[in-house]
Amino acid sequence: MKILHLDLGDRSYPIYIGSGLIDQSDLLKKHIAGQRVAIVTNETVAPLYLAKVRVHLDTLQPLDVILPDGEQYKSLEVLNRVFDALLNAHCDRRTTLIALGGGVIGDMAGFAAASYQRGVPFIQIPTTLLSQVDSSVGGKTGVNHPLGKNMIGAFYQPRAVIIDTDTLDTLPDRELSAGLAEVIKYGLIRDPEFFSWLEHNLDKLLARDAETLAFAIHRSCRNKAEVVAADERESGVRATLNLGHTFGHAIETGLGYGEWLHGEAIAAGMAMATDLSRRLGWLPGADVTRIEKLIRRARLPVRAPGALSPGRFLELMAVDKKVQDGRLRLVLLKRLGEAVVTDEFPRVELEKTLMTMREAA
Amino acid sequence: MKILHLDLGDRSYPIYIGSGLIDQSDLLKKHIAGQRVAIVTNETVAPLYLAKVRVHLDTLQPLDVILPDGEQYKSLEVLNRVFDALLNAHCDRRTTLIALGGGVIGDMAGFAAASYQRGVPFIQIPTTLLSQVDSSVGGKTGVNHPLGKNMIGAFYQPRAVIIDTDTLDTLPDRELSAGLAEVIKYGLIRDPEFFSWLEHNLDKLLARDAETLAFAIHRSCRNKAEVVAADERESGVRATLNLGHTFGHAIETGLGYGEWLHGEAIAAGMAMATDLSRRLGWLPGADVTRIEKLIRRARLPVRAPGALSPGRFLELMAVDKKVQDGRLRLVLLKRLGEAVVTDEFPRVELEKTLMTMREAA
Repeated sequence: MKILHLDLGDRSYPIYIGSGLIDQSDLLKKHIAGQRVAIVTNETVAPLYLAKVRVHLDTLQPLDVILPDGEQYKSLEVLNRVFDALLNAHCDRRTTLIALGGGVIGDMAGFAAASYQRGVPFIQIPTTLLSQVDSSVGGKTGVNHPLGKNMIGAFYQPRAVIIDTDTLDTLPDRELSAGLAEVIKYGLIRDPEFFSWLEHNLDKLLARDAETLAFAIHRSCRNKAEVVAADERESGVRATLNLGHTFGHAIETGLGYGEWLHGEAIAAGMAMATDLSRRLGWLPGADVTRIEKLIRRARLPVRAPGALSPGRFLELMAVDKKVQDGRLRLVLLKRLGEAVVTDEFPRVELEKTLMTMREAA
Repeated sequence: MKILHLDLGDRSYPIYIGSGLIDQSDLLKKHIAGQRVAIVTNETVAPLYLAKVRVHLDTLQPLDVILPDGEQYKSLEVLNRVFDALLNAHCDRRTTLIALGGGVIGDMAGFAAASYQRGVPFIQIPTTLLSQVDSSVGGKTGVNHPLGKNMIGAFYQPRAVIIDTDTLDTLPDRELSAGLAEVIKYGLIRDPEFFSWLEHNLDKLLARDAETLAFAIHRSCRNKAEVVAADERESGVRATLNLGHTFGHAIETGLGYGEWLHGEAIAAGMAMATDLSRRLGWLPGADVTRIEKLIRRARLPVRAPGALSPGRFLELMAVDKKVQDGRLRLVLLKRLGEAVVTDEFPRVELEKTLMTMREAA
């Protein structure tokens, strides 16, 4: 087992990474303060892992809250079902919420924990690659709104993140690939050495080689933890973690939540940000080729869906959280391994990217 | 104008109290950071004060969000209307929300500000006595759930609180009395000198004497600010501000939100807490008489509604936010002017209070 520490003063917490961690009773129990526990999970994950987590907590009689599976259920309405369950069971302010599942469950359980009785403790047990390398770390929680991704939420840190790499054994191939999008992102925005490592090791990751996956998860979490420690509430550098996300969120919202997986939309979005960075003269063509090739090898899209017109794209991007006083800001690549957040790009270049970087309708 | 400062480190803010403050353009504008403003108010307050606030902000083209009036609309569903409006208007993360209205508007606009794009700035302009002396100060925000008052929310501080005492001119008598419940509360829990002052000045308050009201508001806010500065997130002394609230919330939830005003329920709840304190031998009968008399003079109830049986009361109180590991904790009076939070009372004494302190059904 490896342990990373996310350093946030009195909100600091450990990130445990290793094989078989779900079966380690002490790891979970030492982060539970009160006498009550509620496990928030979904219909897909519950049959696989709920009993394994419950077994450690049996004396606490944990409450199970099982939600439907999918990005389309990351809504205020479904969040309210969590509150219903907690209140019906008389869960008090010292109840610990455990998020057991992927990014949707982590974001929703986290926001439920942030707002139930104005805040209760919570623990992340991410079971998808995407949530293990990205969304479970850093305290971004929330739900979608029909008009925009993650528009309602809170910065609220967990007490611990427990990443059991064995849970990837049950992950569908499509979800594994989606997780690789966020892994590749760290290489692109701040870790060029890791990017090269990924070029050499992608086939092993796709073949689910345990050691290679564990390294990629650890390296990703280390990158994430460093950025979040420097800028918890995204007033600066943390926004670079959103490479591809303004484009990607527009794809997710525009197609309807759940059509493309989040990681798929982010992959296409990173290819689009790469294209715009090239148009601004920041990235040479050779790097663009390397980036697109790696994303493709991860079995991920490098073009936006043809169904979304450039005009619709611009409309959808206008509600992005990085918009300031009406100006759209994007994360772009100054070079491979260095990202910037900027509103200094000619509108016409963005439009060219939107026009050329899409599949045939 | 008088200014109090709520000292919370980098979340500190001023509380302005005075006549005609809504008409002072600079006061509002200096607390607005970005280029966008949204004013959240209700159908009752909008015709009275919305134009007065808007006039200062016209160059910013403020967005109006007008909600229905009443505690029954303090819900996740109505909160979502605020998000709809903000997203439809493409409000970004630097949009300042202004809460213009009573406690319901302040709590909802505050929670909207806490969770819109994971947090935007907000300003409180309370227009009822209750919100001026209590709910606008201290950063408790949230909405009700059918199973419990204020069960979903956040601790989220405003940038400023602007209390224009002239807005009380349009306040219905019933609402003025409701506000006096929270004023009396400060006397009971920590300020016995203020309690005596209230005994001498209650008639002037009911007659809306401007100077007397201004003093009561200032003294109440000073008490509130001191307690919140000492314990922002209610891990200790802040809970004493909840005198009467466990009983009162049970009344509000049990009768249906909006039946009794919040202040009315709190008044009855304080009388009940007083009764239980006497039963424990902490309060002499003479003090009980003084307390009940002052509450009655403020035209407020001192008994719970007969419609709620003691059994139903206990059920409703079991979801209170002060419950810890299944044990009900109550704010009680050690003496007039000193409150404690305790779970050390015989259940049978509580039941006697519930049985005797109710109106005939």
